[in-house]
Amino acid sequence: MQYSLARRAAAEAVGTALRVATVVGSGIMGERLANGNIAIALLANTVATGAALLTLILTFGPISGAHFNPAVTLADALDSGTGWRDVPAYLSAQFSGGLAGAIIAHLMFALPWYSVSTHARHGLAQVFSEFVATFGLMSVICGCSRLRLAATPYAVASYIVAAYWFTASTSFANPAVTLARSISNTFSGIQPVDVMPFILAQLAGAGCATLLFRWLAPARFALAMPRE
Amino acid sequence: MQYSLARRAAAEAVGTALRVATVVGSGIMGERLANGNIAIALLANTVATGAALLTLILTFGPISGAHFNPAVTLADALDSGTGWRDVPAYLSAQFSGGLAGAIIAHLMFALPWYSVSTHARHGLAQVFSEFVATFGLMSVICGCSRLRLAATPYAVASYIVAAYWFTASTSFANPAVTLARSISNTFSGIQPVDVMPFILAQLAGAGCATLLFRWLAPARFALAMPRE
Amino acid sequence: MQYSLARRAAAEAVGTALRVATVVGSGIMGERLANGNIAIALLANTVATGAALLTLILTFGPISGAHFNPAVTLADALDSGTGWRDVPAYLSAQFSGGLAGAIIAHLMFALPWYSVSTHARHGLAQVFSEFVATFGLMSVICGCSRLRLAATPYAVASYIVAAYWFTASTSFANPAVTLARSISNTFSGIQPVDVMPFILAQLAGAGCATLLFRWLAPARFALAMPRE
Amino acid sequence: MQYSLARRAAAEAVGTALRVATVVGSGIMGERLANGNIAIALLANTVATGAALLTLILTFGPISGAHFNPAVTLADALDSGTGWRDVPAYLSAQFSGGLAGAIIAHLMFALPWYSVSTHARHGLAQVFSEFVATFGLMSVICGCSRLRLAATPYAVASYIVAAYWFTASTSFANPAVTLARSISNTFSGIQPVDVMPFILAQLAGAGCATLLFRWLAPARFALAMPRE
Repeated sequence: MQYSLARRAAAEAVGTALRVATVVGSGIMGERLANGNIAIALLANTVATGAALLTLILTFGPISGAHFNPAVTLADALDSGTGWRDVPAYLSAQFSGGLAGAIIAHLMFALPWYSVSTHARHGLAQVFSEFVATFGLMSVICGCSRLRLAATPYAVASYIVAAYWFTASTSFANPAVTLARSISNTFSGIQPVDVMPFILAQLAGAGCATLLFRWLAPARFALAMPRE
Repeated sequence: MQYSLARRAAAEAVGTALRVATVVGSGIMGERLANGNIAIALLANTVATGAALLTLILTFGPISGAHFNPAVTLADALDSGTGWRDVPAYLSAQFSGGLAGAIIAHLMFALPWYSVSTHARHGLAQVFSEFVATFGLMSVICGCSRLRLAATPYAVASYIVAAYWFTASTSFANPAVTLARSISNTFSGIQPVDVMPFILAQLAGAGCATLLFRWLAPARFALAMPRE
Repeated sequence: MQYSLARRAAAEAVGTALRVATVVGSGIMGERLANGNIAIALLANTVATGAALLTLILTFGPISGAHFNPAVTLADALDSGTGWRDVPAYLSAQFSGGLAGAIIAHLMFALPWYSVSTHARHGLAQVFSEFVATFGLMSVICGCSRLRLAATPYAVASYIVAAYWFTASTSFANPAVTLARSISNTFSGIQPVDVMPFILAQLAGAGCATLLFRWLAPARFALAMPRE
Repeated sequence: MQYSLARRAAAEAVGTALRVATVVGSGIMGERLANGNIAIALLANTVATGAALLTLILTFGPISGAHFNPAVTLADALDSGTGWRDVPAYLSAQFSGGLAGAIIAHLMFALPWYSVSTHARHGLAQVFSEFVATFGLMSVICGCSRLRLAATPYAVASYIVAAYWFTASTSFANPAVTLARSISNTFSGIQPVDVMPFILAQLAGAGCATLLFRWLAPARFALAMPRE
């Protein structure tokens, strides 16, 4: 038995909206309060995002799988998880939910409902960072979802906390979130022209991790191993 | 078998008191030590509140359900959880426990036992923030309590950590806590005139989430799904 | 079957030593690096202490119960947990382990192996803070150990994180740790003359919580309730 | 059934690479953003490293055991865990993965792919710190892996968070990570001449903890005790 596609898409949309609202909103709050110390603003942004991700995956995971991320949905479809017929609904929900989340954050902070970001994030090192960030994220998802399912929400949230700091791009690692952040000229924004290279690097990173784990922990192995 | 109403109400009162003592006390401590950097004070406030919430839900959850929040109790009664006959005792315990918690915090920090807050928190954006904050909180509670019961304490604490930063109001999300914070003219206070709009927005947010989850994850579905 | 008393006492001694080494050591490190911002030093102190407590309870809990705290051992003996014949060994291990931990911290930071603290911590508000801190700690232990055993390490560590900030005394809540901190003239020290009032308040707080939980969640109830 | 040695070595290499990339990368990011407040930089470094360790142990633990650390592999071989025939592959994977991780971090931050560290870390107190740090780490691993297996990833990550602050050396506690940090002239680097004393102290600390736990919680005891 499975939840209806409408319910699953709604879960993806609401979850992605709250996720983006957290990234954008906590970025605004952090920057406003930190007296110019960017490290403190980013630390607040990190703690809020990690905590939101954990709670949202725990809440919506049993309904839709809690992807909130087109790269995850596509990789899952490649590995015969999500059916290809459901992919368009998932992707639409994620992109529209993400945009709605940015708008909600702006309204909470009494800002115009959208503003085009002028935050430049480009160059080879930034794009390579997104590749590494999404490679790591997808590795965590592949490994945990096959071998340690119940710990996946904690592992994914933890990964994002680390990736905010160890990649030079603060780890967007998500095409829907990347697009949504382009309509927010605030702390966590990205200028529209830099969106597409980020998304391509994210898809490449997710693809490589998926291939690696096909060899490293194939599903037929996982089934034969004792689960913790 | 259920704990007696007296025991459950006592658990709600003690838990809400310790929760409010944490919000108010850690706000005082944070502001005193942070040399005027509000982001650091709020970060300390956030960490302390999230940690307190986790430990209090773990401790009192098995006894009373660990609502500590009139909006949660009312939503739970609407969903046929808490019996309507028990609601007055729960609400009284939460409101009186909350006020006691603020007083305990003041005494620990050698302040007058109460002081009327002059901290203005009003305007549409603030009220909308409370709506979003409580909508999110109630979504987490509805989703986790039906589908992932054991993870609920971690999910709720995590949610509050995120909500401190992603909403413009720092997410009160609780009528009893809101009232209690009006008698504390400290970092986490709210002036009395702003209390009622906050409470109305909180109840509206909790109501919307409850309705959403009636459709999204109805109880009869939850029972039919394998629990993790 | 139970571990021998020698093994249990050794576990208490090593665990308490590492715990005090963390409190004292992270206090020194935090103060040295924080450029005079006490909130940041205390935040580092808090994170380190909470993390150490979690890991030490997980490690030594199955061997000795991981009390690391004379107030906990005494309350547990009153509730017929630890046998009275084992109490002297537990208390000796905790006090001596605590003192060893302070010395180890000093040697790691190239300080004289001990120094008498001149950090004044007195007055009614401070002593009341210790009462509240230990009341809360003992409530968490009583509630979780009866009703949610597996979550106890997380609940206790979380509690201490919160209590560092919501009490005015930063929550010593432990006679052995209090004594050990008197031989460290560093960030987390306490002058010897203030030790005894702290310890008395801690014992009073622990006693009150123990009595409350005898009524609130009596052991015979706990056994009859379904465990999560 | 066990994963092939090639798969296990690959898991150790990828995991150690991501671990070192986190230590080095988050150190660079923290120092760049912290406006000279080293405590904030170290706090970010701590949070990122602890989070990375948790997620990597959860991900790769079921495949290779997630040692990521030659001291752990050697101690495990002494205790008849890892077979001696597999040790060379584990150690090679860890050392080469660690070096690769440092290089990846440098490329993400647009730095030369390696640079010899000039960060002096020597003297008796520093070396004693590494002894204590690795003694504690190995105690946590011995205790949890025998008595509380499922909690080990949380316990180990928590330990490292604490050890960053309570030891004067910020707790390298890992020969492969120590070597890798010598090719990074950034926040978390160590000059090559200081590497060998660190590694010797780490091996001594790991050895002492292994001996202590042979007496404290012998494997034959662990099997006879009820697991939580």
